[in-house]
Amino acid sequence: MDQKTPQPRLRFRLLLGRTAMIGPGKADLLEAIAATGSISAAGRSMGMSYKKAWYLLDAMNSHFASPLVEASRGGSGHGGAHLTPMGRDVLARYRAIEAKAAAAVAAEMDAFNALIVEPPHSS
Amino acid sequence: MDQKTPQPRLRFRLLLGRTAMIGPGKADLLEAIAATGSISAAGRSMGMSYKKAWYLLDAMNSHFASPLVEASRGGSGHGGAHLTPMGRDVLARYRAIEAKAAAAVAAEMDAFNALIVEPPHSS
Repeated sequence: MDQKTPQPRLRFRLLLGRTAMIGPGKADLLEAIAATGSISAAGRSMGMSYKKAWYLLDAMNSHFASPLVEASRGGSGHGGAHLTPMGRDVLARYRAIEAKAAAAVAAEMDAFNALIVEPPHSS
Repeated sequence: MDQKTPQPRLRFRLLLGRTAMIGPGKADLLEAIAATGSISAAGRSMGMSYKKAWYLLDAMNSHFASPLVEASRGGSGHGGAHLTPMGRDVLARYRAIEAKAAAAVAAEMDAFNALIVEPPHSS
């Protein structure tokens, strides 16, 4: 019945190098920055503080040869932000890995899911 | 150089049903109970408190038709614990999904990994 929010059934954290980690929160943040053109608006859309959003971006930026997000100068003058080519590449790779891994185990996930007994409350 | 601890590069949280979630912590806990025959020893081996281990097991047990872990009576009398057939099944399914998904994206992970710039400290 409640099928209008088909949330992803596998959530990944990718460990890159020795210390870098990219999971759903960082990927969603990059996507929201691309959509909103603003770090603060992106964070707000995820219920995340500006400080937390900056912290996640800073952690990601430190692991790649160039930044994933940079400030947009000019335009409205409101100090927006956008993904760099590196940022778009990282986001695309994360989403591609997520989709391919999920597809690879879709049948196993369906079978696993069938073992679950839903709690009695229905909301 | 530091290749003796090839930690998994993808960590999964599987969302089952509407509310059940199984991730690396719960899977490792089931595995440690199977290995040690004791909830407290399993938690200890993971640096996890007995209370936390019980909390994770209780959360898992509530989502399946039968418990995943049960107390071992008899034997040494020390009140050990073991996985039930359901517990073994859940652990095996988690590990199989983890392995199959990781294999499906191994090439993509290698390429992604190549973008990482390691921090200068080497430990």
